[in-house]
Amino acid sequence: MTFPVVGMVGGGQLARMTHEAGIPLGIRFKLLSASPQDSAALVAGDVVVGDHRDLDTLRAFAKGCDVITFDHEHVPTEHLRVLEAEGIPVRPGPAALVHAQDKGVMRARLTRLGVPCPRHRIVEDPADVRRFAETEAGGFPVVLKTVRGGYDGKGVWIVASAADADRVTEPFLAGVPVLAEEKVDFVRELAANVVRSPHGQAVAYPVVESVQVGGVCDTVIAPAPGLPAATAVAAQEMALTVARELEVTGHLAVELFETADGRVLVNELAMRPHNSGHWTQDGAVTSQFANHVRAVLDLPLGDPRPRAPWTVMANVLGGDFPDMYPAFLHCMARDPQLKIHMYGKDVKPGRKVGHVTTYGDDLADVRERARHAADYLRGIIDE
Amino acid sequence: MTFPVVGMVGGGQLARMTHEAGIPLGIRFKLLSASPQDSAALVAGDVVVGDHRDLDTLRAFAKGCDVITFDHEHVPTEHLRVLEAEGIPVRPGPAALVHAQDKGVMRARLTRLGVPCPRHRIVEDPADVRRFAETEAGGFPVVLKTVRGGYDGKGVWIVASAADADRVTEPFLAGVPVLAEEKVDFVRELAANVVRSPHGQAVAYPVVESVQVGGVCDTVIAPAPGLPAATAVAAQEMALTVARELEVTGHLAVELFETADGRVLVNELAMRPHNSGHWTQDGAVTSQFANHVRAVLDLPLGDPRPRAPWTVMANVLGGDFPDMYPAFLHCMARDPQLKIHMYGKDVKPGRKVGHVTTYGDDLADVRERARHAADYLRGIIDE
Repeated sequence: MTFPVVGMVGGGQLARMTHEAGIPLGIRFKLLSASPQDSAALVAGDVVVGDHRDLDTLRAFAKGCDVITFDHEHVPTEHLRVLEAEGIPVRPGPAALVHAQDKGVMRARLTRLGVPCPRHRIVEDPADVRRFAETEAGGFPVVLKTVRGGYDGKGVWIVASAADADRVTEPFLAGVPVLAEEKVDFVRELAANVVRSPHGQAVAYPVVESVQVGGVCDTVIAPAPGLPAATAVAAQEMALTVARELEVTGHLAVELFETADGRVLVNELAMRPHNSGHWTQDGAVTSQFANHVRAVLDLPLGDPRPRAPWTVMANVLGGDFPDMYPAFLHCMARDPQLKIHMYGKDVKPGRKVGHVTTYGDDLADVRERARHAADYLRGIIDE
Repeated sequence: MTFPVVGMVGGGQLARMTHEAGIPLGIRFKLLSASPQDSAALVAGDVVVGDHRDLDTLRAFAKGCDVITFDHEHVPTEHLRVLEAEGIPVRPGPAALVHAQDKGVMRARLTRLGVPCPRHRIVEDPADVRRFAETEAGGFPVVLKTVRGGYDGKGVWIVASAADADRVTEPFLAGVPVLAEEKVDFVRELAANVVRSPHGQAVAYPVVESVQVGGVCDTVIAPAPGLPAATAVAAQEMALTVARELEVTGHLAVELFETADGRVLVNELAMRPHNSGHWTQDGAVTSQFANHVRAVLDLPLGDPRPRAPWTVMANVLGGDFPDMYPAFLHCMARDPQLKIHMYGKDVKPGRKVGHVTTYGDDLADVRERARHAADYLRGIIDE
């Protein structure tokens, strides 16, 4: 048997769903997880519990793997360079992944490529933030981000005014460079998701709308309603360009701002399966997880096309009720077509613990069904 | 957390795919497997290696489970009665499962229910086979089956003539009763698959055609081409009747013969996910595996309707090439919509090691794509 072993670093829900997608391919899945109770560790057979920041742990883990890939961006880039130098296929490789790890590196590179981004630069201190806002970004508000470590609204600060700039000192205490960006006056957020393999094949999923609530992805609608076809194609081409030029292998999510005047600017990059692609599990011919596995193994990629006119994914966040299982009864009985995806995680308020997916011909209906189920599982509605 | 633990007895591909289907539901899956190398044991986290014929092993396994279900029919009925008496939910329960374990019990019960079956009775010896053939079955050929232990053409003998009856002595050496049946002059085999929950909800999948080669399922076409709607509905109603009257919980496959004069007779019953239902993974809103899990947990069942006009499943049998992974390259490149399902099993000639599924609007195209991929993986074609 030469069926390969895919090693995934990180035991979160992305690893859990990648394992699920890898089972039919017959690949052997090995997990490096911080805890035996992590989402993926609960359902996978071959689990190593260890610290992904420790080089020796990574080296020992990699020994049994044909390829290494990631559930998150938190493995130190320098460790990945060592693994790669030692002959371990790391996908995406550190030269690509650094663009998803370091927002400063990402902005500099995308700007050189001519990919539209918000105006930005690294800032040194509050006085420098004022200078950036007043002379480069067209005024306040501006956004500050630590170049590493932020996600889901963490590591991000809005600076509303010059006076505010002096008060927002926290980013400069984090010990990493701080990136300032103009606060784009966007009408909505989109995501262009593509998958690219080492031999250079790439597929593009339909561009989706990602509805954010409190800086966290709440709902994803595929395809993005009312998006002009030319804009959608341009966004897909932009994502394919980024994947090619950065030599990404695996799934690449390009989070985008759509502006009132119809421009599309890059917000963030993620080089792994991504929340904005969860809809593909039930809504596309080939899911992002299956295509990520195929890509990191350099296998031909699967068809990314949608199976229904509309697919909606709604995240299930932890609420006041610690146990969501009893809600299955209502949700499944109300909507026999509902697809539930739970991550096996303990419920904490605001934590992503699952998602639901619906699909069909009528967007309003599809969206209501997803919304209802997500809210019911969370416990914020009781019918 | 009250997410339940589903304990599955048997580590074959049905357990593997049930585990895969249970991951999104957040249920915890526990496996009793004969070997750590069994198909499901390779991909599940909580695996007990033990003998499913040993009562103490079953008892210890059941302790950590909220419900017990099965990958096969080989657990002794009397052990299941003990577990049930001790308060373990066993689904399907032994009173139902015995009809899938013992063909004699099954035939007697279906006949009492008025469900059409081939003419049959238990026979004692070759002379009795001749009497059955000549006075009850309308002549030779007749079929002999051991009432327990047969599958995929094993445990089945065709007796072509009176002279042949004297030569076919093997069934009478097996130590279990022998069932004689008329050899039905069928035009094709069908399967009516239904799922029933303890609270009595049931769903029926479309009736499929099951193309057999050498007594082994080769291809399944959903829905069965050209089947009159009235016949399809009658077959679904028959399967629902059997599920209700036998108090089946979980997936029930009713294998059927369609005769030249348009009648439908029951061939076999299986009370677990079944090869004739594999198409539902990619072809139905809710797969047989997901619905089996929902049923044994007494959750509302998912929509069984097809997602495409035609879905075809072709089994991948072991051939001369021990390693199928290199064939992925060709199969995936040729057909980006192809769905591959490998079981992680060592290849042996004739052994079911995986299946492929295709779907679409054009049956000839869908069928050709599935056939090509299955044959290419097996190594019997090289284009």
